[in-house]
Amino acid sequence: MRASDVDYPLLKTAMLELLTAGGKRLRPAVAILASQFYDASQEKVTSLAAAVEMLHTATLVHDDMIDRATTRRGHPTLNSRWSGEATILTGDYMFAVSASLAAETDSVPVVQIFAQALMTICNGELHQLLSDMQWPPSREAYYERIYSKTASLFAAAAEAGATLSAAPPEHIEQLRTWGHYLGMAFQIVDDVLDFTGEMAQMGKPVGSDLRQGIITLPVLCYLETASGARAAEQIRQIVLGKFDGAEAAVADIVSSGAAELALQEATSLSREGQRALDGLPNGQAKTLLQQLSQYVVARRI
Amino acid sequence: MRASDVDYPLLKTAMLELLTAGGKRLRPAVAILASQFYDASQEKVTSLAAAVEMLHTATLVHDDMIDRATTRRGHPTLNSRWSGEATILTGDYMFAVSASLAAETDSVPVVQIFAQALMTICNGELHQLLSDMQWPPSREAYYERIYSKTASLFAAAAEAGATLSAAPPEHIEQLRTWGHYLGMAFQIVDDVLDFTGEMAQMGKPVGSDLRQGIITLPVLCYLETASGARAAEQIRQIVLGKFDGAEAAVADIVSSGAAELALQEATSLSREGQRALDGLPNGQAKTLLQQLSQYVVARRI
Repeated sequence: MRASDVDYPLLKTAMLELLTAGGKRLRPAVAILASQFYDASQEKVTSLAAAVEMLHTATLVHDDMIDRATTRRGHPTLNSRWSGEATILTGDYMFAVSASLAAETDSVPVVQIFAQALMTICNGELHQLLSDMQWPPSREAYYERIYSKTASLFAAAAEAGATLSAAPPEHIEQLRTWGHYLGMAFQIVDDVLDFTGEMAQMGKPVGSDLRQGIITLPVLCYLETASGARAAEQIRQIVLGKFDGAEAAVADIVSSGAAELALQEATSLSREGQRALDGLPNGQAKTLLQQLSQYVVARRI
Repeated sequence: MRASDVDYPLLKTAMLELLTAGGKRLRPAVAILASQFYDASQEKVTSLAAAVEMLHTATLVHDDMIDRATTRRGHPTLNSRWSGEATILTGDYMFAVSASLAAETDSVPVVQIFAQALMTICNGELHQLLSDMQWPPSREAYYERIYSKTASLFAAAAEAGATLSAAPPEHIEQLRTWGHYLGMAFQIVDDVLDFTGEMAQMGKPVGSDLRQGIITLPVLCYLETASGARAAEQIRQIVLGKFDGAEAAVADIVSSGAAELALQEATSLSREGQRALDGLPNGQAKTLLQQLSQYVVARRI
């Protein structure tokens, strides 16, 4: 008997709760849509989509523990209910399930794409954790961070989906590029919604990133305005956790129009992604990809 | 640019230290030796061996954190020097590297064997963490635990090595069985050395498992003796952490001859593993496998 065969109700329940707690399922959608231009086995694409969502959820389990988050998608996080030990091991278990699902695609390149994406995600988080704060903050560092955190998995999902179809290499690369820009735009919109969204919808206080010392694009845009430049030192102190004027600063950022500037940037990246699709066969698949690119910048939640 | 390409000195140093801190490298040896009966690509077998050691080390990083261990192989553990956050992420990163190395074997079955092994390991640890203590303790539960913890990866390493060679399916299965028994014997000997080893050599106090509430085969053998049966309630209280007579109990177990009984069990499992090699081609590969089976029970460290 193998221990992995053991019916383990607590783990099953936890994973089921995590996977059905909601979320937009964008990453599996990216994987599936990117596979639709050329012939692909429905079964393998389904395994891939499941692998993508499982990997994403596994990283969230460890992230929430690292951030000591208590809720996610309106549900209590695993770490808020279980011990740290059980949370680490559940995340590890989900990485293993994700690898197994990726292997079910029967494609070594897909497994490799997955492994590389996870390396990128972990590397980016370690970098954020271990490196000193850079001041003034740079757009380049922000873009690197959201690539690691978000766009790398969107790009991987698109590349893997395309790889499972009979797409020629240049089209696989174009679909990866589309996924990359989609992920960048998606994350920027997330960062904008952190300032402009309703607390009830977002499930966290407005400006929660800044309150946690994380500089996102709306803040970078704000710092580039005249009033933002004057408030720079205050922002720096908030990030350092040495000044509790976050409430007023968040209100200033929202009223400065910086969120709209950041949203323009997201829209521009989304368009760049759509341009990457030039040369791919026209048809329903392409239309759906373009609609997805438009959705991520139009969404309000 | 991908963030995974970033030269990240701190992570590199940590991984290098972890991987060069010593250890017997038995698991990669198992993978390599199991591949030697039939033609196998040297390069792929090397990737496999590296993947096995990387996976093992990644699990140790998270284990040491869960156990709050401060030293491993005479070196301070990562969790004793870094934050819990950085330790979790470094372990995750190493899982990803391990998956990438496994994919470099170009074999989907090998990736699948790896993923299943990691699932078994995590599942076993979660089981240990979340389930209530069974009393009286059973050999069956002990064997299940050491299979998950240790033998599953030995079995996987042997199966994967054989899979990379042109071995016929029945020989792959026999090599997996050999690896399974090798791992079981290896872990029992580890558990025996925990009672009989020198503290200086083992790097931890004698009887440390029992002191941590973990029942191993020497304790089970002791409980089956007349004096052990009389001491059963005391042992139960030690395991529950409610009685600090561990020092005397450990001395009783050592002097009872229970360790020798456990060692006989390990020797018998090692022989069972060697019998699984019947029918495999005779020659140097087979001799080395047999020697390895004999080594794991003869070793004193």
